[in-house]
Amino acid sequence: MILDKLREKMKDENIDYYIIPTLDPHGSEYLPDYYRERAFITGFTGSAGTAVVSKDKAYLWTDGRYFIQAQRQIENTGFELMKMGEEGVLTYTEWIKENIKDNEVVGLNAKYYLQNSYDSLESALKDKSIEIKDIDLIKDLWTNRPNLPKDKIFIHDIKFAGKSIEEKISELRNSMREKNADLTIITSLDDIAWLFNIRCNDIENTPVAISYAIVERDKAYFFVDKDKLTDEVVKHLNQEAEIFEYDEIFDFVKNYNNKNIYVDKNRINNKLYSNLNSSNNIISGRNLTEFLKGIKNDIELTNQRKTSIRDGIAVTKFIYWLKNEVKKREISEIEASEKLRSFREALENFVDDSFGTIAAYKENAAMAHYTATEDNYSMIKDKGFLLVDSGAQYLDGTTDITRTIALGELNSEEIRDFTLVLKSHLALMSAKFLKGTTDRSLDIISRYPLWKENEDYKHGTGHGVGYFLNVHEGPHSISQRGEGIPMEVGMVVSNEPGIYKEGKHGIRTENIIEVVKDIKNANGEFYKFNTISFAPIDIDAIDVNILSEEEINELNEYHEAVYNNLSNYLQDNEKNWLREVTKKIKR
Amino acid sequence: MILDKLREKMKDENIDYYIIPTLDPHGSEYLPDYYRERAFITGFTGSAGTAVVSKDKAYLWTDGRYFIQAQRQIENTGFELMKMGEEGVLTYTEWIKENIKDNEVVGLNAKYYLQNSYDSLESALKDKSIEIKDIDLIKDLWTNRPNLPKDKIFIHDIKFAGKSIEEKISELRNSMREKNADLTIITSLDDIAWLFNIRCNDIENTPVAISYAIVERDKAYFFVDKDKLTDEVVKHLNQEAEIFEYDEIFDFVKNYNNKNIYVDKNRINNKLYSNLNSSNNIISGRNLTEFLKGIKNDIELTNQRKTSIRDGIAVTKFIYWLKNEVKKREISEIEASEKLRSFREALENFVDDSFGTIAAYKENAAMAHYTATEDNYSMIKDKGFLLVDSGAQYLDGTTDITRTIALGELNSEEIRDFTLVLKSHLALMSAKFLKGTTDRSLDIISRYPLWKENEDYKHGTGHGVGYFLNVHEGPHSISQRGEGIPMEVGMVVSNEPGIYKEGKHGIRTENIIEVVKDIKNANGEFYKFNTISFAPIDIDAIDVNILSEEEINELNEYHEAVYNNLSNYLQDNEKNWLREVTKKIKR
Repeated sequence: MILDKLREKMKDENIDYYIIPTLDPHGSEYLPDYYRERAFITGFTGSAGTAVVSKDKAYLWTDGRYFIQAQRQIENTGFELMKMGEEGVLTYTEWIKENIKDNEVVGLNAKYYLQNSYDSLESALKDKSIEIKDIDLIKDLWTNRPNLPKDKIFIHDIKFAGKSIEEKISELRNSMREKNADLTIITSLDDIAWLFNIRCNDIENTPVAISYAIVERDKAYFFVDKDKLTDEVVKHLNQEAEIFEYDEIFDFVKNYNNKNIYVDKNRINNKLYSNLNSSNNIISGRNLTEFLKGIKNDIELTNQRKTSIRDGIAVTKFIYWLKNEVKKREISEIEASEKLRSFREALENFVDDSFGTIAAYKENAAMAHYTATEDNYSMIKDKGFLLVDSGAQYLDGTTDITRTIALGELNSEEIRDFTLVLKSHLALMSAKFLKGTTDRSLDIISRYPLWKENEDYKHGTGHGVGYFLNVHEGPHSISQRGEGIPMEVGMVVSNEPGIYKEGKHGIRTENIIEVVKDIKNANGEFYKFNTISFAPIDIDAIDVNILSEEEINELNEYHEAVYNNLSNYLQDNEKNWLREVTKKIKR
Repeated sequence: MILDKLREKMKDENIDYYIIPTLDPHGSEYLPDYYRERAFITGFTGSAGTAVVSKDKAYLWTDGRYFIQAQRQIENTGFELMKMGEEGVLTYTEWIKENIKDNEVVGLNAKYYLQNSYDSLESALKDKSIEIKDIDLIKDLWTNRPNLPKDKIFIHDIKFAGKSIEEKISELRNSMREKNADLTIITSLDDIAWLFNIRCNDIENTPVAISYAIVERDKAYFFVDKDKLTDEVVKHLNQEAEIFEYDEIFDFVKNYNNKNIYVDKNRINNKLYSNLNSSNNIISGRNLTEFLKGIKNDIELTNQRKTSIRDGIAVTKFIYWLKNEVKKREISEIEASEKLRSFREALENFVDDSFGTIAAYKENAAMAHYTATEDNYSMIKDKGFLLVDSGAQYLDGTTDITRTIALGELNSEEIRDFTLVLKSHLALMSAKFLKGTTDRSLDIISRYPLWKENEDYKHGTGHGVGYFLNVHEGPHSISQRGEGIPMEVGMVVSNEPGIYKEGKHGIRTENIIEVVKDIKNANGEFYKFNTISFAPIDIDAIDVNILSEEEINELNEYHEAVYNNLSNYLQDNEKNWLREVTKKIKR
């Protein structure tokens, strides 16, 4: 058993507790297979979890989304499940704190441990006389480890990117000056890809390249596996940056002395951070690039709008297909996802999905992050709802859209809940707000109509969306946990309220919206949202009596835009159907 | 000229800059005359402002509410006006920083300077080699200074207070234990009055006694001018506290060593704070009493609801009187205020107004904090709006209510704006929210319908309301500047959105609301608001076409409650009128 081998290693190296988190050295949301150490050790393949092994205990911590899957996958591995968030269940840090004895040693691979988490661990254990040791106990055990991806990096053409590397680095240096930073170390892969106008295929659904970057006031450095570079890319990068091998950064940063160094402790790994000597002054905050990247430039916005229309064609064709097909036969959730992808694959500049499609029938949709798999999926029938949350990567933008599709007969609770979610969606869609209003404050606008009817959703209302990059990006997030980032013109964000009822149904309606200017008057400068996703919202599922006239008008206007934007790209039968399902509704 | 005399003093004492703020030693919102040093020196009588005098300059800083009044009042005093908030106008700290030279001395009376402000001043000047000196240059100049009030303190009966001193101090000690505090120094007068169940008349409209308190884990001390105490009050206080003379606290606190001392730096004056020796550990935050006082007990809530109904009778009688009287003759704003007071004076347990009534006709209402005075008031005619914001202190509660009353013909903008303010008011009134939702998050609920129509108000949506205490109290405040305090059952707060148009009109509709429990379900525990103020909202000023049916129902339900709660206490003519003005409206 792999666990026994790990314990032998621990004994040899005098490690009493070994922590295996789910992380790469860059704090990425999704991981290349190479970094899935926790899955290798525990057998559990979900996207989130931490394993801790001691002499006599081996636990896997994961959250409610994964209790069932994790329980099944860790059977016979020697690991036991710790259900995060359940009453009385300690966090892994608390568990270590409660059990560790003086002079014992905690081991972890500092490359796969973010500095902020490290600070928390250290602070939790500060009253103990213990040691935290950077040690890699996995590499020798993992014999058939997948390779790091060797795909070639490609240039993201300026006609898509909208700004040259030169402009971007110059903006970054302005931000650095404001923060009084001599240099910044950038470890997050989407920030690096954005800054250098490069893309790659190193992470599934996410067009980034495994790399590091350092930008000083007048020089910049790029650290990467040089095999991934073509001559063209080298030339492109050399306009602004010197290129080093990927791992050289660890020694490179040791040479900084007496500098003001800006880092994002939520993104930098503890190993790299520890190599900064103490003569330096650390300025810590969200990556400066995140703020620059989060406000899209005009070319990005123009492209993103066009891309969203293109993507809407695929989604609309899919809905038409599904609604007709399900009358004839049952369809598996997996076939539905594949069909949707096939519509997208036909589109200009399509690269990949932007995340694993969620096609969840009936009560499956009540489980957050449900994914149909070959050994666990449902057949879609001609009643109830199918929730489809999907998106794609195009060279000229990233999409993310959710529709909950009525397949036939609905019960009154399904109709009520669908209509309430629509009210919530329209509330944010048609909101106006004064300049300076923050991401966090806007969240309650969407919850207000649901709360009035005793409903809620246990996730944020919206996340920032990348541009041919991460489908989830910061700095903003319309959420109670938002950091209070003022919403700026050019920010792109999702609008995705929902209602989830265990054992019954899950409903979510999601479009992408962008912040645009509205009027300026004695009260100040107003901003509003412009919705850029287009696909019909299912009027078969609406109870018009719980919509106000204002809401009915807002929906009708949106549907008019859906028809106008999409109809020219559809076949006659699809077009006729779209005319019908986007017709004006009234009481 | 008084300024010359001050400068002579400054020269004698080697003071180069002297700061005269608007403060008492307790951080009170309203000040007894004794403390109005800034008004004495500058002639400016407004409620906010700071004067700074140097050898050759003398400035008064105040905000937009007071530019006109201040300009007029400081004429010929040698002071010049600094318009706070206007572009390019330095704050007084910035001005001192820009002008002061090495080795110069800033003087201020540390008793009238809050510790937080002192910290800011010190930090702003930290790069200069200057001294900040505690010195009172006013006392010898101010020959006809009013006395400190000598009114007797009285007991706030347990039948009104709901909890004994013993219970309150025991709750406070629980909070102290949570914060690991050995003692807490309480300087804010409403907190002291609440804690000891005492009241007095030391501040206009605010039934508090000038005093300090210290609570240790097993002893408590009360510092006051002993002439203000009757034998009965001494006996009452001695249940829990030892009594000392008011100024003895300054020496008393010098004796604490190695203690954990909890203080509110926004309420403690710099002189008192400076007397705490450095062996102590300071824990700073909002007064712990503020959190206890902010959640009303059941007897307070029951009384406050009854008091609000009683107060509503006065307001309703006043509106009836005004609407009839103005058809016959013009009425001065001052007469209107006095008339309203006369209706309140007739009510059980009435003590005083809870703040200076704002009765502002037409465009006067667009000025925030407008107060009619003997030499500056308008005559009310039978057209446009009168805004009346008023409230009272009763032994069993404090009220605060605003109605904007249509006196006859209105133009379409007045009707539109009145209706928008009503939409905003109803939005918060009928809100439901999950436990844990904060004061700050709720604010946008009220602004949402106004922002949609390009309107806004430049003040908070609501403030906490005391119970026979300060009309404005914390810790909560429904405002973008709220501190993120979770709204708890038993919190009482105002709901007062508005629209203000310079030169045209000002509209505000204000009721007091309390947080109550609603249902608990899979989504969590819901709270909602219960409106406890009752008086008709003027249906003559409503454009029913911009209200949704839901809003119309909410208003109709409120008006039904107004009629049901008030009609039995009115004369027949008033009652018939009330029936008419609270009738159900519809499209």
